[in-house]
Amino acid sequence: MAEPAGASRDRIDEVVVTPVAFADPPLLNAAGVHQPYALRSIVQVRTVSGLTGLGETYGDAAHLGLLRRAAPALRGLDLFDTNGMAVRLAAELRGAEAPDAHGLTGASSPSKSLARVVSPFEVAMLDLAGQRTDRPVHALLGGRVRDAIPFAAYLFYKWDRHPGGGPDGWGAALDPDGIVAQARAMVDRYGFRSLKLKGGVFEPDAEIAAVRALRAALPELPVRLDPNAAWTLATSHRVARELAGDLQYLEDPTPGRYGMAAVAARAPMPLATNMCVVAFDHLPEAVRLGSAQVILADHHYWGGLRASIRLAAMCDVFGIGLSMHSNSHLGISLAAMVHLAAAAPALSYPCDTHAPWAVDDVVANPLPIVDGSVAVPDAPGLGVTLDEAALARLHRQYLDCGITRRDDAGYLRTVQPEFRKRVAAW
Amino acid sequence: MAEPAGASRDRIDEVVVTPVAFADPPLLNAAGVHQPYALRSIVQVRTVSGLTGLGETYGDAAHLGLLRRAAPALRGLDLFDTNGMAVRLAAELRGAEAPDAHGLTGASSPSKSLARVVSPFEVAMLDLAGQRTDRPVHALLGGRVRDAIPFAAYLFYKWDRHPGGGPDGWGAALDPDGIVAQARAMVDRYGFRSLKLKGGVFEPDAEIAAVRALRAALPELPVRLDPNAAWTLATSHRVARELAGDLQYLEDPTPGRYGMAAVAARAPMPLATNMCVVAFDHLPEAVRLGSAQVILADHHYWGGLRASIRLAAMCDVFGIGLSMHSNSHLGISLAAMVHLAAAAPALSYPCDTHAPWAVDDVVANPLPIVDGSVAVPDAPGLGVTLDEAALARLHRQYLDCGITRRDDAGYLRTVQPEFRKRVAAW
Repeated sequence: MAEPAGASRDRIDEVVVTPVAFADPPLLNAAGVHQPYALRSIVQVRTVSGLTGLGETYGDAAHLGLLRRAAPALRGLDLFDTNGMAVRLAAELRGAEAPDAHGLTGASSPSKSLARVVSPFEVAMLDLAGQRTDRPVHALLGGRVRDAIPFAAYLFYKWDRHPGGGPDGWGAALDPDGIVAQARAMVDRYGFRSLKLKGGVFEPDAEIAAVRALRAALPELPVRLDPNAAWTLATSHRVARELAGDLQYLEDPTPGRYGMAAVAARAPMPLATNMCVVAFDHLPEAVRLGSAQVILADHHYWGGLRASIRLAAMCDVFGIGLSMHSNSHLGISLAAMVHLAAAAPALSYPCDTHAPWAVDDVVANPLPIVDGSVAVPDAPGLGVTLDEAALARLHRQYLDCGITRRDDAGYLRTVQPEFRKRVAAW
Repeated sequence: MAEPAGASRDRIDEVVVTPVAFADPPLLNAAGVHQPYALRSIVQVRTVSGLTGLGETYGDAAHLGLLRRAAPALRGLDLFDTNGMAVRLAAELRGAEAPDAHGLTGASSPSKSLARVVSPFEVAMLDLAGQRTDRPVHALLGGRVRDAIPFAAYLFYKWDRHPGGGPDGWGAALDPDGIVAQARAMVDRYGFRSLKLKGGVFEPDAEIAAVRALRAALPELPVRLDPNAAWTLATSHRVARELAGDLQYLEDPTPGRYGMAAVAARAPMPLATNMCVVAFDHLPEAVRLGSAQVILADHHYWGGLRASIRLAAMCDVFGIGLSMHSNSHLGISLAAMVHLAAAAPALSYPCDTHAPWAVDDVVANPLPIVDGSVAVPDAPGLGVTLDEAALARLHRQYLDCGITRRDDAGYLRTVQPEFRKRVAAW
C-alpha cells in the first residue's frame, strides 16, 4: 500500500536519552529520606523533519540502561505509531527487568519494566504527533473534558536541610505544627485546595495528630494520609476508625491486596493505592477483593498516556475512583500528567505532584500551578519547550553528584544507622 | 489560550444524516427473518475547510431521530474533539432512548442510546482527523498491530428468495446440505478460514447436525454457532456437551448473564456473547459470574472506536477473549471495523461480517475480502470514499421501500402467522 503523504519526514530519526539530577529537599517517608539529588531521564525523540518530542521518566541506572537499550529500536517508526513502538520494545527488551527504585510498587517483572520503558517514548511520540497536527496532546487522547487540573499540596515530614547542607527555605516539619506551617506556605504560594500528607514516618498517633492539626487549621481543605504500607492490619483499622470524617481517603495503610481489602471492609473512608495495584494484571484480584476504592494512576509505570486512559476507563467501569500518583519530577512529566488528567473523564480527585519541591527544571516554560490547579495547555504537543542549557547543567549535575540510583533507606542510615524500611512496622 | 494554528478551518461546519435502504436476502434467525431491505444511516461530517468524514449506523426511525437531534450539536467542534462531542451529545440527548431494533441487546436505556448515537459521529471525526493528518484511522488509535483482519463466513439458514421476489443467487439453506453448500460458496468466493452459523432457527438437533456436516465437509475450518439465546439452560448444557470438540465457541446459547454463567461452568468450549454483555456497566457482573469467555465487540453500540479499544483492553485484563459482532452493514462500517481490529492487540478470533450478503454499497471502493481477510488500509482516514450517486439511489430506495424499522418477527409472521421470537424456547 502507498505510504501516507508526508510519512517519511515524520519518521523517527534519532532518540536521545539524557540522565539528569536536580536538587531535592530531605523529604521523609517510610522508606527513608530523599537524597540531595533526584534522578530523571529526559527523552528526546527527533523526526527526519526535525521535530523533537519530549518524555521524562526515572533516572536510576538500571532503568536508564533499559531506556538506552530500547532507544535505537524507535528509528524508522512513524511518529504516530505508538503501538508499533511498544511491539518493538517488547521484542528488544524481552525478559529484561529493572527494579523499581522509585516507588514502592513491589517486585520487578518484565512486563512492569516494559511498561516503564514504553511510557516516556509514548509521551514523546504524542508530543510529536501534537506538534505535527497543531494539536495539544490531550486532543490526541480524545480531547479535554476539563479546563484545569486540580492538584493537592503534597506535605512531607522533613528536615530543614540535608546533612552538611544549607537550609532549603521550607524549614523543618517534624511535628503537627511544622506540617501545618508547611501546608500554609504551600497554600499561600500555590492556592492548593486539598492536602496530602506523606506518612509512615512517625508513630501513627503522631500522624493522627498531624492530620487533626491540618483539619483544625485549614478546615475547608480535604486531607489525605499516605503511610506507604507502614502499618499492620490492626493499626490500619484503628487509625481509619480514629480519623473517620477527617480523611478524604486513606492511602496504602497496609501491604498487599488482601490486607488492603481487609482494612477497606471496615474503614469509614475510601482506601487509595499506588502500591497494591500498579499493573493491569493486578486489577482482577483487586476488583474481586475490593482492595482499593481509589487508584492513583501514574503514566510513568502504567505504560504511558493511552494505557492510563484505558486504566481510567476500567476504574470507571468497576466503580473505582481515580486520582494520580507522583514521584519527584520535572516539567515534562507535569505536562504529561496534565494532558492525561484533561482527557480522562473518570478523574475523581485532585492529583498528586512533587512540583513545588523541585526548584530546577529542564523546560523553559513549566506549567504554573495557580489557585491549586494547572490550566490545561492548548499549545501544540505537550506545550513545554526544552531548555537546552538547563538540560546540560542538570546532566552535568547528574555526572557530578555520584548518585546513580535512588536509595532513601541508605541515605537515612547515614544519619540513623539502625533505620530499616517500615513495612507493616507499626 | 491561543487557538491552535489551523484550528478554525478544522471546525465542524455541517453534519448530514442520510437514511438508506439496501437489498438484504431472507436470512433467518431466532427473531424472524431479514426484510427485503436493511436500513442504515450514513453520517457525513464536514469541516469549514471542506473535508468530509464518514460514519455509518442503524437506520431505524427512532435511532435516526436521535441522530438528527444530535447532529447540530457538533457544529463548531474541532475535528479531533471526540470527547467534547460525546459531552455535547450527552447534554443534547439527556434521557432520550431509542429501542434496539437491530440486535438482541436487551432493554434500551439512555446510556445505551447515547453510545449508539456517539459512535457514527466519532467514526466520522476520526475519518476527518485521519485525512487531516494523512494518517489511516488505525494510526490515530495507536497504530496497527496486524496487517490483515480475518473474518468468518457468516452462514445463515435462508429461503432462496423473498416472498414474491426472485432468487437472490445464494439458494435456499434449510438443512445441513444447504448450509454446507452455502459455506462452500462463501469459502470459494472469499477464502474464509472460519465459519459461523446463525442458529436458533431450527430445533437444536437440526443445528447440531448442520455443525457436524460443516465439520465433516470443511474439517480445517473452525465453526461457531449462535442461536441468539433461543435455548433453555438444559438444552444449552446438552448441545454444548454434544458439540464438544466441534465448536471454536458457542455464542449466546441462553439468555442473561446468570444463565450464560451456568452454561459456561460446564461447557467444554468458550461461550461468546453479544447479548448479555453489551455495555460497560454489564462487565463487572459478567466478570464476577464468568458469563462469557469471549465478548463480541461492536463499535456501533459500544460508543465508537476508542471506546471499543478500551473494551478490548478490559477483555485482555480480565482474561476474556475478543471477537467482533456484525449486523447488516455497508462499506463504511466495514472500514471502521477493520481499523478497530487493526489497532486492538487483544483481538483473539476472526471477526463477523455481513458484507458478503450486501450487494449494494454507498462507498465507491469497498475494502475487499481476500483469502478470508481484509488488508488493513493505510490511506488517510477510513480509506473509503462516498459514492454520491449510490447514496442518492439507496436513500431513494429508503424512501420508497416503506420500511422504517427492522422487524424480523413481523416479517416472518406474514408467512408464518403463529411465529413468536424464540427466547429460551427450545
